[in-house]
Amino acid sequence: MFKRIADLRTEDNIGSTILLRGWIHRLRKQKEKTFIILRDDRGDIIQAICPSKLCEDLTIESSIAIQGKLEKDPRAVEGGFEVKVGKISIFNIADVDYPIGEYQSDEILLDFRHLSLRTRKMINVGKLRNSLLKYSREWFDKDNWMEVTPPILVQSSVEGGSTLFEVKYFNEKAYLSQSSQLYLESMIYCLGPVWTISPSFRAEKSRTIRHLAEFTHLEAEAPWIDMNDLITIQEKVIFSIITQIREHNKKELEFLNTAAIKKLHEISIPFEKITYDRAIDILRSTECRIRDNDGKERLIEWGDDLNLESERELTKDRSNPIFVMNYPLSIKPFYVKQDPLNKMTGLAVDLLAPQGYGEISGGGIREDNLEKLKNRMRETNLNPTDYSWYLDLRKYGSVPHGGFGLGLERLLRWILDFDDIKNVTLFPRTMTRILP
Amino acid sequence: MFKRIADLRTEDNIGSTILLRGWIHRLRKQKEKTFIILRDDRGDIIQAICPSKLCEDLTIESSIAIQGKLEKDPRAVEGGFEVKVGKISIFNIADVDYPIGEYQSDEILLDFRHLSLRTRKMINVGKLRNSLLKYSREWFDKDNWMEVTPPILVQSSVEGGSTLFEVKYFNEKAYLSQSSQLYLESMIYCLGPVWTISPSFRAEKSRTIRHLAEFTHLEAEAPWIDMNDLITIQEKVIFSIITQIREHNKKELEFLNTAAIKKLHEISIPFEKITYDRAIDILRSTECRIRDNDGKERLIEWGDDLNLESERELTKDRSNPIFVMNYPLSIKPFYVKQDPLNKMTGLAVDLLAPQGYGEISGGGIREDNLEKLKNRMRETNLNPTDYSWYLDLRKYGSVPHGGFGLGLERLLRWILDFDDIKNVTLFPRTMTRILP
Repeated sequence: MFKRIADLRTEDNIGSTILLRGWIHRLRKQKEKTFIILRDDRGDIIQAICPSKLCEDLTIESSIAIQGKLEKDPRAVEGGFEVKVGKISIFNIADVDYPIGEYQSDEILLDFRHLSLRTRKMINVGKLRNSLLKYSREWFDKDNWMEVTPPILVQSSVEGGSTLFEVKYFNEKAYLSQSSQLYLESMIYCLGPVWTISPSFRAEKSRTIRHLAEFTHLEAEAPWIDMNDLITIQEKVIFSIITQIREHNKKELEFLNTAAIKKLHEISIPFEKITYDRAIDILRSTECRIRDNDGKERLIEWGDDLNLESERELTKDRSNPIFVMNYPLSIKPFYVKQDPLNKMTGLAVDLLAPQGYGEISGGGIREDNLEKLKNRMRETNLNPTDYSWYLDLRKYGSVPHGGFGLGLERLLRWILDFDDIKNVTLFPRTMTRILP
Repeated sequence: MFKRIADLRTEDNIGSTILLRGWIHRLRKQKEKTFIILRDDRGDIIQAICPSKLCEDLTIESSIAIQGKLEKDPRAVEGGFEVKVGKISIFNIADVDYPIGEYQSDEILLDFRHLSLRTRKMINVGKLRNSLLKYSREWFDKDNWMEVTPPILVQSSVEGGSTLFEVKYFNEKAYLSQSSQLYLESMIYCLGPVWTISPSFRAEKSRTIRHLAEFTHLEAEAPWIDMNDLITIQEKVIFSIITQIREHNKKELEFLNTAAIKKLHEISIPFEKITYDRAIDILRSTECRIRDNDGKERLIEWGDDLNLESERELTKDRSNPIFVMNYPLSIKPFYVKQDPLNKMTGLAVDLLAPQGYGEISGGGIREDNLEKLKNRMRETNLNPTDYSWYLDLRKYGSVPHGGFGLGLERLLRWILDFDDIKNVTLFPRTMTRILP
């Protein structure tokens, strides 16, 4: 019986009586007539003109159902349709102190996120998130990967102890998963290529516009792949997501950032690949400087991690993402495989998004040799006995393998070119924000 | 180049030279010939006969690649195919102390879950889990629901404080989500019908074969639905999952429990609906007894919750699931809407699986009236100020709505008729188990 605005707003329906449900998005009361902008449950809006005597009590965000004739009026919003309301029924009259107005500080919008989700910006973000999830999965499903749900409550750290959230687990300590990687690695022996979209957690002590304490983590792992395979897989996944989004989510992209459509159309595969060595050469030639731990500034050199500024420098004039591979082993985690051709570097690869954005995905080939892995643990001050189950994977039938992880919020932030990652997240979690 | 056993094991390939990779599942060494059962990365197995001099070092779970001629031998496993190995290359010789043998206690299998995942039982469970996720999503996607990722780190309890896991969240306390329901409710105002498959957490202090501390929770919520709509949605979702699984996962079901196929074919919709009142009448007529908190046994009566035994009694002679609806308000959570026709009962509905299994899904219509909701909170000793953001949803444009939640592990345990829910879970978390 009830349809949505998007279904009814057609030339065919002009003159027909239609039924709609939704919320009062905007309201202008005159003596005889009241102008309502009605927003439905998918964020579409339409103008409705209602005899004022039928709707005296209405307030912003009140929930109503209306019945009326669909007419055309070029002055009306979104394509010039309007409803001449004959009947109105009210579900709920909203309190007059609705805290979200047209212009509101970012902090208020976050404090009342349960309400600011109803802004058209966040509705469009929500729809893009739905599409991102759907099109990510579609690729893995079509390519015959197995979806798994790795545990969130864990006792082993993947990314180092400093960003672990501690959980009181009955009489023990547990942590929230920073990455499913170690578990995905255990599954390649039984399910082959596997993937997941799971929440991951990082107790990031810095307040940045790039980090969330809880994020949506797409991760994949496969046996018997090498660096070339891994790079090709990432290219395919990301290009498939981008082409689907630019095809199916034009409306949302246009609303949120028209430039995004053009940007996505400029992406093509294969993406360029450069080594870390080459990256350092480029950065030194542009005199990229970094700050040491003791605060002194100096020219970047081989062995330094690529920080935000260096990633920006490498990507600012590009329209296509770029892979940087074969980093110094010393700046990468214990599980990265040593390059058989150069023992100083590891088979890690990061994907940097263009226009100065920086890392959206990281991965690599994993160390599959038990003794080398143990040595790397000791070098990075980890105790191999804390990882005994993980080491078993190398003890019993180890195989070459690799994988990658991609933060869906980071990808979306880049697509939309939003300043703050919180704005592509429905209920962001940061150092200072756990509510609502 | 490399394919899987399932792709190669065809009559067409008899006589061809094939390449396979995998692990030594079983091994029988003779003087001249060694009989290998090779297991590939999707758990299929094939017999391979290898000159013993080529494979002297092999052990159970060693990882190898073989090249050889595919032949037929009626004595061989899984369809009578075997490979006459010409070349073998070894990735890794597994240590001889591989802890998983053919007959192993449940505890050992759980202690070494990272290895026991390689048993064919767990591989088939893994494949069924992949299908359950896929076919659940497929229904919601086709029916135009929006997928969301609600936060896991929260400060409000949905299911009562006793099963909350506490997290040290920077300088605050937070909890792990027991259910996404409250967040899904906030999203129906902006995204309409929404759903998620997210991990949920319950600090269950009892050791049971029905409970996990972390489980895979399918939840859905929609605006403007009534009890009939809600029941129909659940029927459709579950029937769609069941029909897809029985069609596409015959092989896994046959391996794990042949009887499951017949059982799934006996399911048809609509499912029977009975009220709680009627359930109590039935249970009293069969003299169903329950134990009071003080330990005394007595006949079940109106106002008692349906425990395991009563759910078993109601479902033991059925082949179809059954909905039980309109429970006493006093035994249901604060958010359940009071039945307008009977103020003693609430619009809650549980779905009980047949053959004595019991609850797999629970849901209901939510209280949409602000004052009634606050009163219910006070009656259940909750402080409305702790839920102020949730109450805002009733203050600003409240609409009738409802939803449900379904534990995917419970559903799978019922489908497979497994005793222990841990056996349908890849890395189960219970009071005594957080590793591996």
